[in-house]
Amino acid sequence: KMEKSTNLRWRLPLICFLWEIIMIILFGVFIRYDEESDAHWVEFKKENNITSDIENDFYFRYPSFQDVHVMVFIGFGFLMTFMKRYGYGAVGFNFLMAAFGIQWSLLMQGWFHSLDYSDGKIKIGVESLINADFCTASTLIAYGAVLGKVSPVQLLIMTLVQCTCFAVNEYILLNLLLVRNFTIPAQSLLLFFFLIILFIFLHLFIYQPSFIITKVLNNFVLIKNSLAAWFSIGTIFLWVFWPSFNSAISNHGDAQHRAAINTYCSLAACVLTTVAMSSLYERKGKLDMVHIQNATLAGGVAVGTAAEMMMSPYGALIVGFICGIISTTGFYFLMPFLESKLKIQDTCGVHNLHGIPGLIAGIVGAVTAASATEGVYSRQGLTNFFDLEGKNEGRSISQQGGFQAAGMCVSIAFGVVAGTIVGLVLKLPFWGDPADDCCFEDEVYWKVSGQNTPGEWELLRKQLRLGWKEGGDTVFT
Amino acid sequence: KMEKSTNLRWRLPLICFLWEIIMIILFGVFIRYDEESDAHWVEFKKENNITSDIENDFYFRYPSFQDVHVMVFIGFGFLMTFMKRYGYGAVGFNFLMAAFGIQWSLLMQGWFHSLDYSDGKIKIGVESLINADFCTASTLIAYGAVLGKVSPVQLLIMTLVQCTCFAVNEYILLNLLLVRNFTIPAQSLLLFFFLIILFIFLHLFIYQPSFIITKVLNNFVLIKNSLAAWFSIGTIFLWVFWPSFNSAISNHGDAQHRAAINTYCSLAACVLTTVAMSSLYERKGKLDMVHIQNATLAGGVAVGTAAEMMMSPYGALIVGFICGIISTTGFYFLMPFLESKLKIQDTCGVHNLHGIPGLIAGIVGAVTAASATEGVYSRQGLTNFFDLEGKNEGRSISQQGGFQAAGMCVSIAFGVVAGTIVGLVLKLPFWGDPADDCCFEDEVYWKVSGQNTPGEWELLRKQLRLGWKEGGDTVFT
Amino acid sequence: KMEKSTNLRWRLPLICFLWEIIMIILFGVFIRYDEESDAHWVEFKKENNITSDIENDFYFRYPSFQDVHVMVFIGFGFLMTFMKRYGYGAVGFNFLMAAFGIQWSLLMQGWFHSLDYSDGKIKIGVESLINADFCTASTLIAYGAVLGKVSPVQLLIMTLVQCTCFAVNEYILLNLLLVRNFTIPAQSLLLFFFLIILFIFLHLFIYQPSFIITKVLNNFVLIKNSLAAWFSIGTIFLWVFWPSFNSAISNHGDAQHRAAINTYCSLAACVLTTVAMSSLYERKGKLDMVHIQNATLAGGVAVGTAAEMMMSPYGALIVGFICGIISTTGFYFLMPFLESKLKIQDTCGVHNLHGIPGLIAGIVGAVTAASATEGVYSRQGLTNFFDLEGKNEGRSISQQGGFQAAGMCVSIAFGVVAGTIVGLVLKLPFWGDPADDCCFEDEVYWKVSGQNTPGEWELLRKQLRLGWKEGGDTVFT
Repeated sequence: KMEKSTNLRWRLPLICFLWEIIMIILFGVFIRYDEESDAHWVEFKKENNITSDIENDFYFRYPSFQDVHVMVFIGFGFLMTFMKRYGYGAVGFNFLMAAFGIQWSLLMQGWFHSLDYSDGKIKIGVESLINADFCTASTLIAYGAVLGKVSPVQLLIMTLVQCTCFAVNEYILLNLLLVRNFTIPAQSLLLFFFLIILFIFLHLFIYQPSFIITKVLNNFVLIKNSLAAWFSIGTIFLWVFWPSFNSAISNHGDAQHRAAINTYCSLAACVLTTVAMSSLYERKGKLDMVHIQNATLAGGVAVGTAAEMMMSPYGALIVGFICGIISTTGFYFLMPFLESKLKIQDTCGVHNLHGIPGLIAGIVGAVTAASATEGVYSRQGLTNFFDLEGKNEGRSISQQGGFQAAGMCVSIAFGVVAGTIVGLVLKLPFWGDPADDCCFEDEVYWKVSGQNTPGEWELLRKQLRLGWKEGGDTVFT
Repeated sequence: KMEKSTNLRWRLPLICFLWEIIMIILFGVFIRYDEESDAHWVEFKKENNITSDIENDFYFRYPSFQDVHVMVFIGFGFLMTFMKRYGYGAVGFNFLMAAFGIQWSLLMQGWFHSLDYSDGKIKIGVESLINADFCTASTLIAYGAVLGKVSPVQLLIMTLVQCTCFAVNEYILLNLLLVRNFTIPAQSLLLFFFLIILFIFLHLFIYQPSFIITKVLNNFVLIKNSLAAWFSIGTIFLWVFWPSFNSAISNHGDAQHRAAINTYCSLAACVLTTVAMSSLYERKGKLDMVHIQNATLAGGVAVGTAAEMMMSPYGALIVGFICGIISTTGFYFLMPFLESKLKIQDTCGVHNLHGIPGLIAGIVGAVTAASATEGVYSRQGLTNFFDLEGKNEGRSISQQGGFQAAGMCVSIAFGVVAGTIVGLVLKLPFWGDPADDCCFEDEVYWKVSGQNTPGEWELLRKQLRLGWKEGGDTVFT
Repeated sequence: KMEKSTNLRWRLPLICFLWEIIMIILFGVFIRYDEESDAHWVEFKKENNITSDIENDFYFRYPSFQDVHVMVFIGFGFLMTFMKRYGYGAVGFNFLMAAFGIQWSLLMQGWFHSLDYSDGKIKIGVESLINADFCTASTLIAYGAVLGKVSPVQLLIMTLVQCTCFAVNEYILLNLLLVRNFTIPAQSLLLFFFLIILFIFLHLFIYQPSFIITKVLNNFVLIKNSLAAWFSIGTIFLWVFWPSFNSAISNHGDAQHRAAINTYCSLAACVLTTVAMSSLYERKGKLDMVHIQNATLAGGVAVGTAAEMMMSPYGALIVGFICGIISTTGFYFLMPFLESKLKIQDTCGVHNLHGIPGLIAGIVGAVTAASATEGVYSRQGLTNFFDLEGKNEGRSISQQGGFQAAGMCVSIAFGVVAGTIVGLVLKLPFWGDPADDCCFEDEVYWKVSGQNTPGEWELLRKQLRLGWKEGGDTVFT
């Protein structure tokens, strides 16, 4: 069984080279600098009466961009290093996926959002980089659900399909349905259904036979990891930089400012209720690191849509308060239920951290938007913020609600489609995914001599067969 | 003895929920956006002839804010992960305290500094977030002194009391005594006396009986940790971002610029003298990681007050030079003295890193301020910097010195009061603090199955009773 | 043999104190604030019709500065923590070197670039800090080549010599030959030859006798480290912040913006080809962490010179594409060749990561500069960018090419000179470097009780003498 071919010597280089060459060609044909990053900026400034270089969008967004970049590569990567023997894969494959994803997202989002019809080119600037990071982030989140069970080739395919679907979905929502401030919850919905479908496929076709052993092995490495006694640095980086995530592409000025404040408040409240629930659920009141490392972030997700609106700091606190409770509960009840009853294994608990809080984000965003008044925003503020004299002219708030509902349906449809495609493609037998009893092992795809001696491996499997019991494990000290 | 109840199943959730609900109510009643983060910004701009969104305070301070945020959650958290079996507690409780502390600080500092008397609301913006982080940071520093010996419930109480005292003290200093640039050393003084009093209480009432065993255990875990061979990433983040810490709330323009330069210089000098002293003190000239990880930061603390003044880069070097020597000496001589003679155990050596350098900061700040002249600052610069036409009108430099001395006395008083309150409250028997021989153990408050098997625990305690000797420890490989 | 004196009790403190005192004196004599960080800024603003504090260079560059600062202290430090028993030395000595290096660079670069002839003072601002970080970074890169084999005293001397040579070389290039945008490849060339010469000296005079044992020991610790299963956080920080590195001192506005975009693209492409080549080289298609952690960064190095030019995003992708291939190949073929045939041991593979990509950077930069046209840059843009009405007036593009070639020769010469000086000085017998069989051991210079028990040490040496074979190593679990 271990002999299932995971040798990627031709498949992985082939896909990497091929795709990168395609990227180069497409970038060559399509992508150019926008007016703020092009050398013509000096003339652009003159034409538009811009008096100073500091008005370049770079200075409005670059600090936030770097924070988001840290979140994507450090945050999401190290959030998944909780398994002792899958540290390379967690960060390394996250790295590979993200590096490809941002290139593909620049193209996909460019075609839909920044295509200059005068010359048929996509014009990119720092905001495009941030959007590419966002689009990629959703793929990395989905990686958390299949962490340790797929090959890098499968992950690259997954990145391609998902970034595509996300960009198309985003286009329909923002440009056709004109749903404002709705990207994040819609994407969460997409992600939610994408994962469900994906799980069903994975479950039906790939992981059935020795599922129990995989599960035990999974727990095994999870438990032993505690020896490392490391609080995930990924969590903290995500938590600290989430205000930048939510404010990075908000309107200049007060909107960006407010988005940071609201996210800051929501996250703080979420920590307290997560700790409370975690302690409440455990028989002896002890805290479970899995909850603290994940559910504390739900506040940032759930406030994502409404963060730039006038939701008030106390509104943000309430959102964080609720999310901490719901997300922790998800980790405590939903995850084991999915695993034992439905045989769906969500390695990182993505549903609890991103799925459900994403739904909450949609509701919060809709409610906050619907309750916007001139008194709160000022006449000019309201007009600017909701673009009432631009794209959204003549739409009533209740009509807007209808379009948002339509947006949610579109997102669900895309989730199902993307999940089906990815699920079907991944179950093809030639992507080099690991056999069930080799899951969650870096050794399969990484040169880690010295890590797993054959003897240890043998011993582990013996223990697994005999039934492993707590406290009696001295194999991997 | 191990049976002392550390089950927090009701106490911790109760305090978390209760306090968070109070936060929500108080935020709802009091906290609103300030004019730069409110949607009325578009009108505010017009009224004040502000031509560009880039003039929003957000763009002046947000990058520094994010650096400070990293320091608070990553820096202080990971600075305390030097104990092999207390990594969860170090970062996790730091996280919990900080998340509560920033909310409470927003309120406390808001009431005293940003209350808008026209409508009775606190108006917050990015500067408020930075100030809340600062206020909380002092509490996290104090956590270092009791690291591993208290329960999360006690830590939350400590956070409440300390943030309150700090905000009140800051108000008296800045608004009543009009002591400029004196917050940091005053807060250090407060911290210094707070800790001394706290230690006395803790010592008298809680930790007496088996103190020696605790100490041995402490050393034990400290030593074995070296296997990890990790240089603290917390230290480096603190060191790297300290220029942002000292410049984050300085005046726009040259003051912020100068504060960063001075801190950069002082920290660099401090590293060299710390290395020199550490090598000098050890018999074989080897470096002690405890010194390098802590005393190198003293330069940032000590330059805190004067950083935004015209102290000159060489002045900053001198401050760093002296602080490296003094702080390392503190770690080498003072800490063991406190521990063996006075039975005061300062887990992280807070006195050497923050206490004494804080005093130096006060002196440096006073001297630099007193020597300010029109030649150095320019007439307009001096007037602006010391607000001579505003709050400080008509005060001579020498009078200012008197008020600063008064400020120091106030701070000492607050330190004593805060220490007494916290000490008295903490010694109440129902906060779930660990028994002496369970200190410095994550297992007490965290679900870490696999970490401490009962067998290992037994063996460790046997070794301790027999007297533990270097080189003979194979228990926790 | 182990008795070779590595006791630095007097040498290290002496050099630290002496040099820091010299720094203080030189800073006192020479270094002052520039007009943007001086309190006269308020008058400077008025004189120059600057309307807002946001025009202060601080706000253009400080976020990038902090990113670069993280790269220097965290990135380069933790990039070298791949040896299980040399984690303290990797980060700790990197810290010491950098702290001294930035001070000395401020002086050296100040004398050459920022000396105000009216009063004989160096005027520093945030751009000076960034430049000092850059200059120091090259020294830290060189540290990678001798990691584990030298004493901190030698490292301080190396820092002094190298920073000096780099600053002088930079001066000749930028101010005498007026070679624009050529600093990074020239510095890479310098570094390249510096290291070659240094290696020859080290090889001839110091590390000959028991070289093989050292090598085995080196491999030994490398291999066992994999137990840690940590993907280098240093790599990711370097990768994430490299756009800031390349854009930090670019011209305000579009140049800074463009430099960030190009670097972002090049790095992304580099990851894919690195993964492809790494998988291709290994018999079973497994990925080698050494490649992934290093070669992925080559794209950032190679795009360094041309990043701020109009190279187009697809141009950046091509550079990254090529660099990933070349750098990985270097790690796979060149490094073992150097080690086994020439007995040159480059611990971190600096030549593959910085040397060769540096040469590529030079070529890319020259080609991109030579192909600049008014059509691409706009007339004004071209004039501004290449300073055609300033220093470079009247020079043709082909002449510029000639000067660049001259610049490369100068850099090579400086590399040889610096290498010779450092090599000669280091081979003096009194710097306390470790004996061959104590290399790559933290215990030599750090107080790490508990890490290496004498018994383990003995056992290791026995194994080495007997010949060590994979899978049979149970000494350092």
